[in-house]
Amino acid sequence: MAGSVVSLDNPVFASYAAYAGLASMKMMGMSLVTAYHRLTKNVFMNAEDTSFGTKAVVRTDNPDIERVRRLHRNDLENIPPFLVVGFLYVLTKPSPDVAVWHYRAFLSCRLLHTACYLGGLQPWRAIFFFAGFATTVSMAVQVVAKGAL
Amino acid sequence: MAGSVVSLDNPVFASYAAYAGLASMKMMGMSLVTAYHRLTKNVFMNAEDTSFGTKAVVRTDNPDIERVRRLHRNDLENIPPFLVVGFLYVLTKPSPDVAVWHYRAFLSCRLLHTACYLGGLQPWRAIFFFAGFATTVSMAVQVVAKGAL
Amino acid sequence: MAGSVVSLDNPVFASYAAYAGLASMKMMGMSLVTAYHRLTKNVFMNAEDTSFGTKAVVRTDNPDIERVRRLHRNDLENIPPFLVVGFLYVLTKPSPDVAVWHYRAFLSCRLLHTACYLGGLQPWRAIFFFAGFATTVSMAVQVVAKGAL
Repeated sequence: MAGSVVSLDNPVFASYAAYAGLASMKMMGMSLVTAYHRLTKNVFMNAEDTSFGTKAVVRTDNPDIERVRRLHRNDLENIPPFLVVGFLYVLTKPSPDVAVWHYRAFLSCRLLHTACYLGGLQPWRAIFFFAGFATTVSMAVQVVAKGAL
Repeated sequence: MAGSVVSLDNPVFASYAAYAGLASMKMMGMSLVTAYHRLTKNVFMNAEDTSFGTKAVVRTDNPDIERVRRLHRNDLENIPPFLVVGFLYVLTKPSPDVAVWHYRAFLSCRLLHTACYLGGLQPWRAIFFFAGFATTVSMAVQVVAKGAL
Repeated sequence: MAGSVVSLDNPVFASYAAYAGLASMKMMGMSLVTAYHRLTKNVFMNAEDTSFGTKAVVRTDNPDIERVRRLHRNDLENIPPFLVVGFLYVLTKPSPDVAVWHYRAFLSCRLLHTACYLGGLQPWRAIFFFAGFATTVSMAVQVVAKGAL
């Protein structure tokens, strides 16, 4: 055994780790965007949050805030599966080039999806959503094929 | 060391990988069901999405769409913890038979839960929810017991 | 190679496993709190759920239930990234003391965040939210730095 597959010495795993870390922070970053809009617009979700501003109100119909929340939920639906499937894919010992491009494609699609969601751009948002989705499915199919039911 | 635990050569890990890949795709599949209902019913969530149909409207009260979204959220609450806990459980070196049946039980429960949610069947939906929940908790308890606080 | 990094024999991994298992169960526990409120208040989300009580109704405006659901969603936004980033952080071979305190800080912050959310305590809820958030980001930055883009 020349080295462990699950190690930062394995270039495929090191690539997965970097993209997984970035995708995690991207998803968490949506909380900061929501907080920014809440604080600047004085619109909150709980009665006790109105202590953050003298003009603060509880409302769930601010278009900017709700847009970020829809985008954040879309991340919750897509990024956690990528994080796990991307790791299992490392264990299938894929070609390093193919693997790294899967990770790059996924993160790029999610960043472009985010830009299109915030900018209200269709059909681009749908295109980047499905491209990122297909990237995860491509890895998942290979994981299931090499696993054992 | 006869071989690595975290390897597709380990039958328990290979089983985990296959069920984790299927559970991930199952959860992601809910996005496709939602998209199908949106496109066939012309009901969308953002103003710019109405470009997908001449009769498209923005509404959040379509019963079929909202049902799939509630189901999808239930997956988000249960499948990501399974994906991580199921992996950590492999590291506790469980009996292979017991481990594989945990994975099979979880995925079966989630598939049956999905069918019952879409079909509006209670108390079956609750029963399959709690059975899948208990499967993950069973593994999590063993992980915590063999970990170190 | 004296031993595998991804093994319960590695104290850092054993610590990660225990805290990851507890954080997973904590998040899943929110489902039980929601179910408790639904059954005691006779307020449900689907027409077929009203079979659980003769006075059961379908409503989405019960303040206790919606508060737990907002808290649960906040967990979904923060705990799955911790579960994955916390694992990748083990692979960066951190100082065991520093690593264990990251895990302890994260779980403590999320438990205190939960108490503050249920009790309606601001700015404490925000403080524990950001402290837990910063813990995950601290690990993610180190993972990305040691990974390969």
